[in-house]
Amino acid sequence: MVRKPTPADKFSFGLWTVGWNAQDQFGSASRPWLDPVESVHRLAELGASHVTFHDDDVVPFGSSEADRERILDRFRGALAETGITVEMVTTNTFSHPIFKDGAFTSNDRRVRRYGLRKVVRNVDLAASLGADTFVMWGGREGAEYDSAKDLNAAHDRYAEGIDTVAAYIKEKGYGLRIAIEPKPNEPRGDILLPTVGHALALIAKLEHGDIVGLNPETGHEQMAGLNYTSGIAQALWADKLFHIDLNGQRSIKYDQDLVFGHGDLFSAFATVDLIENGFPSGGPRYDGPRHFDYKPSRTEDFTGVWDSAAANMSTYLLLKERAQAFRADPEVQAALEESGVLELSQPTLAPGETLADLLADTSAYEELDVDAVAARGFGFVRLNQLALEHAIGAR
Amino acid sequence: MVRKPTPADKFSFGLWTVGWNAQDQFGSASRPWLDPVESVHRLAELGASHVTFHDDDVVPFGSSEADRERILDRFRGALAETGITVEMVTTNTFSHPIFKDGAFTSNDRRVRRYGLRKVVRNVDLAASLGADTFVMWGGREGAEYDSAKDLNAAHDRYAEGIDTVAAYIKEKGYGLRIAIEPKPNEPRGDILLPTVGHALALIAKLEHGDIVGLNPETGHEQMAGLNYTSGIAQALWADKLFHIDLNGQRSIKYDQDLVFGHGDLFSAFATVDLIENGFPSGGPRYDGPRHFDYKPSRTEDFTGVWDSAAANMSTYLLLKERAQAFRADPEVQAALEESGVLELSQPTLAPGETLADLLADTSAYEELDVDAVAARGFGFVRLNQLALEHAIGAR
Amino acid sequence: MVRKPTPADKFSFGLWTVGWNAQDQFGSASRPWLDPVESVHRLAELGASHVTFHDDDVVPFGSSEADRERILDRFRGALAETGITVEMVTTNTFSHPIFKDGAFTSNDRRVRRYGLRKVVRNVDLAASLGADTFVMWGGREGAEYDSAKDLNAAHDRYAEGIDTVAAYIKEKGYGLRIAIEPKPNEPRGDILLPTVGHALALIAKLEHGDIVGLNPETGHEQMAGLNYTSGIAQALWADKLFHIDLNGQRSIKYDQDLVFGHGDLFSAFATVDLIENGFPSGGPRYDGPRHFDYKPSRTEDFTGVWDSAAANMSTYLLLKERAQAFRADPEVQAALEESGVLELSQPTLAPGETLADLLADTSAYEELDVDAVAARGFGFVRLNQLALEHAIGAR
Amino acid sequence: MVRKPTPADKFSFGLWTVGWNAQDQFGSASRPWLDPVESVHRLAELGASHVTFHDDDVVPFGSSEADRERILDRFRGALAETGITVEMVTTNTFSHPIFKDGAFTSNDRRVRRYGLRKVVRNVDLAASLGADTFVMWGGREGAEYDSAKDLNAAHDRYAEGIDTVAAYIKEKGYGLRIAIEPKPNEPRGDILLPTVGHALALIAKLEHGDIVGLNPETGHEQMAGLNYTSGIAQALWADKLFHIDLNGQRSIKYDQDLVFGHGDLFSAFATVDLIENGFPSGGPRYDGPRHFDYKPSRTEDFTGVWDSAAANMSTYLLLKERAQAFRADPEVQAALEESGVLELSQPTLAPGETLADLLADTSAYEELDVDAVAARGFGFVRLNQLALEHAIGAR
Repeated sequence: MVRKPTPADKFSFGLWTVGWNAQDQFGSASRPWLDPVESVHRLAELGASHVTFHDDDVVPFGSSEADRERILDRFRGALAETGITVEMVTTNTFSHPIFKDGAFTSNDRRVRRYGLRKVVRNVDLAASLGADTFVMWGGREGAEYDSAKDLNAAHDRYAEGIDTVAAYIKEKGYGLRIAIEPKPNEPRGDILLPTVGHALALIAKLEHGDIVGLNPETGHEQMAGLNYTSGIAQALWADKLFHIDLNGQRSIKYDQDLVFGHGDLFSAFATVDLIENGFPSGGPRYDGPRHFDYKPSRTEDFTGVWDSAAANMSTYLLLKERAQAFRADPEVQAALEESGVLELSQPTLAPGETLADLLADTSAYEELDVDAVAARGFGFVRLNQLALEHAIGAR
Repeated sequence: MVRKPTPADKFSFGLWTVGWNAQDQFGSASRPWLDPVESVHRLAELGASHVTFHDDDVVPFGSSEADRERILDRFRGALAETGITVEMVTTNTFSHPIFKDGAFTSNDRRVRRYGLRKVVRNVDLAASLGADTFVMWGGREGAEYDSAKDLNAAHDRYAEGIDTVAAYIKEKGYGLRIAIEPKPNEPRGDILLPTVGHALALIAKLEHGDIVGLNPETGHEQMAGLNYTSGIAQALWADKLFHIDLNGQRSIKYDQDLVFGHGDLFSAFATVDLIENGFPSGGPRYDGPRHFDYKPSRTEDFTGVWDSAAANMSTYLLLKERAQAFRADPEVQAALEESGVLELSQPTLAPGETLADLLADTSAYEELDVDAVAARGFGFVRLNQLALEHAIGAR
Repeated sequence: MVRKPTPADKFSFGLWTVGWNAQDQFGSASRPWLDPVESVHRLAELGASHVTFHDDDVVPFGSSEADRERILDRFRGALAETGITVEMVTTNTFSHPIFKDGAFTSNDRRVRRYGLRKVVRNVDLAASLGADTFVMWGGREGAEYDSAKDLNAAHDRYAEGIDTVAAYIKEKGYGLRIAIEPKPNEPRGDILLPTVGHALALIAKLEHGDIVGLNPETGHEQMAGLNYTSGIAQALWADKLFHIDLNGQRSIKYDQDLVFGHGDLFSAFATVDLIENGFPSGGPRYDGPRHFDYKPSRTEDFTGVWDSAAANMSTYLLLKERAQAFRADPEVQAALEESGVLELSQPTLAPGETLADLLADTSAYEELDVDAVAARGFGFVRLNQLALEHAIGAR
Repeated sequence: MVRKPTPADKFSFGLWTVGWNAQDQFGSASRPWLDPVESVHRLAELGASHVTFHDDDVVPFGSSEADRERILDRFRGALAETGITVEMVTTNTFSHPIFKDGAFTSNDRRVRRYGLRKVVRNVDLAASLGADTFVMWGGREGAEYDSAKDLNAAHDRYAEGIDTVAAYIKEKGYGLRIAIEPKPNEPRGDILLPTVGHALALIAKLEHGDIVGLNPETGHEQMAGLNYTSGIAQALWADKLFHIDLNGQRSIKYDQDLVFGHGDLFSAFATVDLIENGFPSGGPRYDGPRHFDYKPSRTEDFTGVWDSAAANMSTYLLLKERAQAFRADPEVQAALEESGVLELSQPTLAPGETLADLLADTSAYEELDVDAVAARGFGFVRLNQLALEHAIGAR
């Protein structure tokens, strides 16, 4: 059986996850609107520690200033009652039709200005609620058609938008970092910053990139056929893994937002292993919230909604136990050694060795027994089988 | 009919393309070995201006020093006779089984050292032949299994390898720039630096990244479902498009290496439009060789090989004419205006405007008629139809 | 320039295409409701000959009997005024939440019975309007999870549902044929009858399969990475291509429903070539409506809606001209001959020849010069280049 | 720990799996040739009961009649010594360049005749060895280009070829059934009969289709993004699941042929659950060999080869235990009931009920409380979580 989550587990949920009314591209809502205050209470009971939200999840788009304050007061009350904290806030710049061609990169400058205002307003809210992270998912930044977007200008505008917000955060002294969430497509045909790599590359060109990092989502990388664990590994290597969105996806198709583990289960094990145990030879670690960004399937009623919320945490905790046992197993440690996994942390050039030294080292090239070296078996399949058996609790 | 290519077209071919013996994963060679000297002559006759090669394409792996010199002399003779130049050289670090777990990131340090030596040796050759670009495709840098690779160490080693080579180029004063070629998978389950974005992100962390850029291949990005034109656009925006590999791919599947245009034809039009005409509002341009990295299908004999080589250039030239007509069409210019494509180059904040100014601009937010702005039709479908009709010569 | 469509072109549009309000998974409607009567008039002006619809496209779900009649009268009036006819009708068994687990295969028998009633009711309407085809897209027949569906029972129920409707059509003497529309996923994780093949296989097991065929959609097959032209070819071979849904899709991702040709353009050329010119050596032909099932992008206003509707027809007509020129070109005919394309219609065993005869024919095996036969070049790349040049009007 | 396989487990391996020399599209062999006799002995030691092979796996292509007999005698000796039996035989019609455009559907009639001869010869061998199944994987039947193949003629030829072989089997009185193995692509751009569905559809048109069924491979269906378990379920429903090829694939990409379970692990659980436990409400069952068609990764030496062979069986056995516990769990049975999974076997029309009766049943439509029915929660996520927890041994 699975133990109950505790605050040390740092589980976090988007309010838009359990609150999704199950309206999709081909069908109308199958569940009524869910009061965010109720969500906070229910998530607390299930063992979550944090919630996150888009502005419009809590305060309906177009609310008056008075309504907004009233709604936020009630929301703050629920947080206080439950001890739940807001660790991340994000802005909805994709649902309203004004954003149909994007926000920061819309071809319409009025929209760009409006979008920037909407984001900045929400930064103030995020700071006031004590959030650490401000996520930016530019879901509508992109195009269906190659002629529809000047991609040089688009990257300029994207960078301008993020840098402006980052400068504002610094100027205000807010304790916030921005985390960009990449996605390859849907709802646009091709979205700008489609993968972890593209977003890291943009950040490297920013003026205020020091407080800008990533919020990679499991399914988003997998929608491009990419390995999610490899993606967050490169983000960690670049010291840019500021937040994570865990969920499930089954192969390359529409964005499924399944429960974590209900997609590629063995890959989920690898993700948890990296998050909980770090790289085999050490290196940068992630210690932020374990945040779930999923959708309870449209077939479910509210019982199914809360069961599904709990399922995310249960699966994570189970895989965490398995990943810890995997690393602790002496047979695994020996297999990692045998496979050279631990050898990779040794620099190719020895400490103090120059390339000239290597060029002079005939044992490295001229005299190397190439066939003998080539014959080495790496034992990767056995190591993977060990991982599989640990993942399914068979060792 | 298609005009004959000229040197101004800068067409370039890898010798491994026409020289492929058509052995694949499921079958043995259907064509005999092709003498690189013959390839140089035939490509020259067809109108190509440049060739490129892996070390092992010209000098068989394991050749003696004497054989190597003799072979290279003969090869230089063919270049001299034809006027063909070598614009790019690359190293084969993927075919021999010694590289079965990669070269710069093999778990076996002996392999890493050997690989580095093989690369450096080839840098000298590239420089001696007057090449501008040194491509690195790390086709075996990766893994099939998540447990098989310490991904933090792997990125460290990858960076170490590239930086070492880049430092050597600088030290020697060679006129070479390195171009990394990303690929998501095949022959490894997941390859490191799987997309344009991931490679740009790594480069941003290098010590000698100033002479390191990209060599994106059409099919490689499309194997991840990504838009190739968007990929090279981001590389251009980052001033890192050092080289291109043009070919064809039909959807997400094994690496097809079809003739340019024989994959996603309309996307090929967009690629040519960007390369030849630049971004709509200006910006960085690519003016390097138009390099084809394709494979003549296994069903073809040598007649088919040379027909396919010619087909790459014909298709490119046809699409170039169409792309020039597209941009020159006043109706298209009006449509670009109407769709706001040209508006995107305007900064979101006006020159001199601060964010504080924007926050004080009630016309941007508080008083904006959101519904009216949202109602704007962007006319993207009509613009795309204009592009399509130009692409197929119907206007 | 493109000629105006005529009735001989048999162009047909779903009312849900131009009528889509542009609400998607991540955003609310960007266009208001469009009166079907207006759609009929506008489509007629653009040159379409037919319309098609789901029951709920014309008569809102839950309308009273009186409202239904009033609405249908007005709709019939528009048909009469314009000369537009209804060639196909289909039933919406996917939008209302009652169908969230499917209609014919919902785990809830009440839903199955309700769905069957809804379908049969609409069959009567289809017959009364003179339609030829009754399409069934079981968009919600499927599951996200392997444990959620007894797949043997599901295929039993699917067959029961279709057979029941087919028997009803026969009993009533309606001039209707059923056309199943396959789709691999979205809105369900895995949809039953995911491809042309799976649907053909089910039909082969039906009691009343003689009046059941297919309605393959371009993008649906391409969402599984399959070749749409190959799919409709196998349906034709099985004499089951009863209807077609033409649109555009760019690689494997969410269902894009782009304008025909705005996805894989060269593949669209092949589709038109097959529909208009048939197989190279003859065989079954399709002569039904050229039906477009697409969505005007969410970025468009009504001008964009009608431009996009026209674009489908323009592209089709342009590709039709090119395909006719392709087949008429003597160089192409010679290339088809050279490539053996026309040879494939010759049976492997000669007329009257038995397998025993072949086994006794030593020239076929024992004495065959295998290497000589293997050396034949098929010239497929050149043939494809001829097709490409015709497709883009360059010959 | 995992128990040792026994004959009751019916494990079977292709000799080409462990015998693969690890030459791939981008690299030369990393392992030497492996004597089939050794493979038989080693597989027997590991607990396998059967082997399967292509003609060329055991007898090199082009061997003399005398060599062939000598080789086969020695092979039969190994079978006799070990008790291993040959349950399936297949023909290699894809490796030699004569088959570069296919065998049964090559555009060259000489190749079609040669291919038919090669297949028939191997049918005799299969029968003489007591095999039950004769697999046909038409890996080269297909095309890269739409113009290269008359698809009507191709399906005619494919059907002719299979029917000819099936008639021969019947005439000879062999106890063999043919099993077609679908694959969407690789090594051809598009392969004929790309999925389980397409192959079933062709079989339905055969004259001798009664002895023709399917051999679906896990990775092949997954390369089209399709659910493998759903595929074999439809094959079972059609009484056509004659054989299975189990392996692993990670998302849509080149054919990986990983160890079973090393791809989509949770999907592998569903596959084993269906094979071992059947459909929830009964129906057709598969009781043939559990056949693995995988490739030991190129990074492995022979230790890795045998470890990987064992891993297939271990994973299968572990998942079998888990699947049995899943079905035996009363909580699972209750959840299946709650989700309506067991309700789906009830016909939509009651026994004896006609459609007319249903049309007269106002409780089914006119008086149905649609909103109440729509509000039912199916509990699929909870059911899936139960499956996941059983799969990973957590209950």
